[in-house]
Amino acid sequence: MEKKKVAEWLAQGSIAVSKLLLDRYKQLGLDERELVLLLHMQSFFEAGVSFPTPAELAEKMTISAAECMEMVRRLLQKGMIAIEEQTDERGIRSEKYTLEPLWEQLVHHLYTDAVRSGQAEEEKAEE
Amino acid sequence: MEKKKVAEWLAQGSIAVSKLLLDRYKQLGLDERELVLLLHMQSFFEAGVSFPTPAELAEKMTISAAECMEMVRRLLQKGMIAIEEQTDERGIRSEKYTLEPLWEQLVHHLYTDAVRSGQAEEEKAEE
Amino acid sequence: MEKKKVAEWLAQGSIAVSKLLLDRYKQLGLDERELVLLLHMQSFFEAGVSFPTPAELAEKMTISAAECMEMVRRLLQKGMIAIEEQTDERGIRSEKYTLEPLWEQLVHHLYTDAVRSGQAEEEKAEE
Amino acid sequence: MEKKKVAEWLAQGSIAVSKLLLDRYKQLGLDERELVLLLHMQSFFEAGVSFPTPAELAEKMTISAAECMEMVRRLLQKGMIAIEEQTDERGIRSEKYTLEPLWEQLVHHLYTDAVRSGQAEEEKAEE
Repeated sequence: MEKKKVAEWLAQGSIAVSKLLLDRYKQLGLDERELVLLLHMQSFFEAGVSFPTPAELAEKMTISAAECMEMVRRLLQKGMIAIEEQTDERGIRSEKYTLEPLWEQLVHHLYTDAVRSGQAEEEKAEE
Repeated sequence: MEKKKVAEWLAQGSIAVSKLLLDRYKQLGLDERELVLLLHMQSFFEAGVSFPTPAELAEKMTISAAECMEMVRRLLQKGMIAIEEQTDERGIRSEKYTLEPLWEQLVHHLYTDAVRSGQAEEEKAEE
Repeated sequence: MEKKKVAEWLAQGSIAVSKLLLDRYKQLGLDERELVLLLHMQSFFEAGVSFPTPAELAEKMTISAAECMEMVRRLLQKGMIAIEEQTDERGIRSEKYTLEPLWEQLVHHLYTDAVRSGQAEEEKAEE
Repeated sequence: MEKKKVAEWLAQGSIAVSKLLLDRYKQLGLDERELVLLLHMQSFFEAGVSFPTPAELAEKMTISAAECMEMVRRLLQKGMIAIEEQTDERGIRSEKYTLEPLWEQLVHHLYTDAVRSGQAEEEKAEE
């Protein structure tokens, strides 16, 4: 029985957190709680749950379902996440979250940053 | 357009490969191709595909669909993967792969190894 | 130039966050900020920095270096992290953080949980 | 003792394997063995070993040290990896592997692919 338990624990695996995101969430205007909520979303997606409820998210966090709902609303408003409609093979519609906007904001930030440091280097070279 | 592409690439993310598995697949009797096939399976699972076909797996590998099918058969036989039946909410049955047996074999190997090195240490102490 | 930048971004990679930890940090008495601080530590370790300063950690977080130092102190006290001495090949001593205590606490929690749910099942069976 | 072992196993963690790489190594001209060798390199890097020997790599693989050396030579030749010189704080020079060329090749492939499918779409629209 014991070994079976340990095998289950090891089988849980990990989610991969982009170092770019970990290094720059602060500059995107996110705080630690919001980052962790996004990680929970990613974990739910990988488990096949594409539209976790505030209650499901809050169960794993140190905040209430109401606070969680408020946080999701704020992330939607800041354009970090979006809700998409999907239709399954039986024609039944449902909603799902997507983190695409987050990646677009991150890339926008990276480009701006690269241009800025490129200019800084040019100016340095001109001196 | 460009930025959108880059965002898509970054959004692809990563799959997490257990270091225990990476360090010990050889001792479990797996070779590199079999390991990579298991990683492809994991990647399919995370994308919601629980029973990838040999053709789908082979498309990403340097082997043919026939060789891939043969490899899957061998992994089933060696007790590294298993096929489970699942029934969805509409009562429709389908099959899915599970990597549980792999984890059980890994844990079995780890225990055996820990006992062996524990005995070695005891013998050393007795000398 | 552009492609080079994109290659750099993709090369950054990801850190792997255990799902067991993500699912249970709350039950270990950690909040989201503390979890993220631990992820930053892991990221520093992988980059070869084994004893990041509060200032280095705070630079990536939405808290000040002073708050960060306080948080590290609290994690040491709660037995989630520890400081170890290491001696390099030249005999020079230095300190490094280790997350081993965190894993021991997590495993202790998992065992307790498994025993509890095992007892619950037995009681159910006896009814 | 037991719990301590299990904690150690869980603490091993995972390395993150880019899905882009997993999906396209074949198109970059890599086979499964070469991919796994690159994963072993990444694992060594994260553990602070920046120039693993063929013997160290082969120990974890199903190939001999000689075959491993040959494979490394081929990866250098194909421009997937490179060797860089580094000088430490004491002025001592050493060599290390870098996977940067791999990422540059991957990005080059992604751009070519994006342009090609962009053209295909335009042609379709013109019909």
